[in-house]
Amino acid sequence: MVAAVNGQELKIIKVQGEFPWHRHEAADELFLVWKGNFRVEFRDQIVNLGPGELIVIPAGVEHRTAADDEAEILCFEPAGVRNTGNVDDAQFTAPNNVRI
Amino acid sequence: MVAAVNGQELKIIKVQGEFPWHRHEAADELFLVWKGNFRVEFRDQIVNLGPGELIVIPAGVEHRTAADDEAEILCFEPAGVRNTGNVDDAQFTAPNNVRI
Repeated sequence: MVAAVNGQELKIIKVQGEFPWHRHEAADELFLVWKGNFRVEFRDQIVNLGPGELIVIPAGVEHRTAADDEAEILCFEPAGVRNTGNVDDAQFTAPNNVRI
Repeated sequence: MVAAVNGQELKIIKVQGEFPWHRHEAADELFLVWKGNFRVEFRDQIVNLGPGELIVIPAGVEHRTAADDEAEILCFEPAGVRNTGNVDDAQFTAPNNVRI
């Protein structure tokens, strides 16, 4: 997390590989690509994004994120949202309130 | 405005020159520089920002933004915030809910 405003947080995420399928029941999630290529997979489609492109994942919609090569992503979402949503994943669930 | 999430909006702003002094009584404002150089002036200091740098302006704090050459800025703030805050400026006050 790099900034907090109005109960929301801006997070920097470095991604490579595939994230677990999950959903956030009560939070929309905005991803904006800073560097590299990134994709968001839904059960019925895949959205490919490059630098400067963004996507909003509405609350409750199942998805997973992925990148073949390392990419840098900005994420805006409410404070306290668990990165793996409804899933508790030993490898991927990250602590909240870690400020850099 | 390019995206709306959780009652907040992501806006793209092209800036050049000086904006009027103003404050937002009830909204924090986050600016992240996408391209160019940008500064945020407070009554007691000036903060210079380049690409990838961000600033959070807490609610109620008077400020103005400025750029010598055109710069591209991302702004994240609650939906419905007036860009000139407590000031109604014939030249600079922009309409809300304009989606691009």
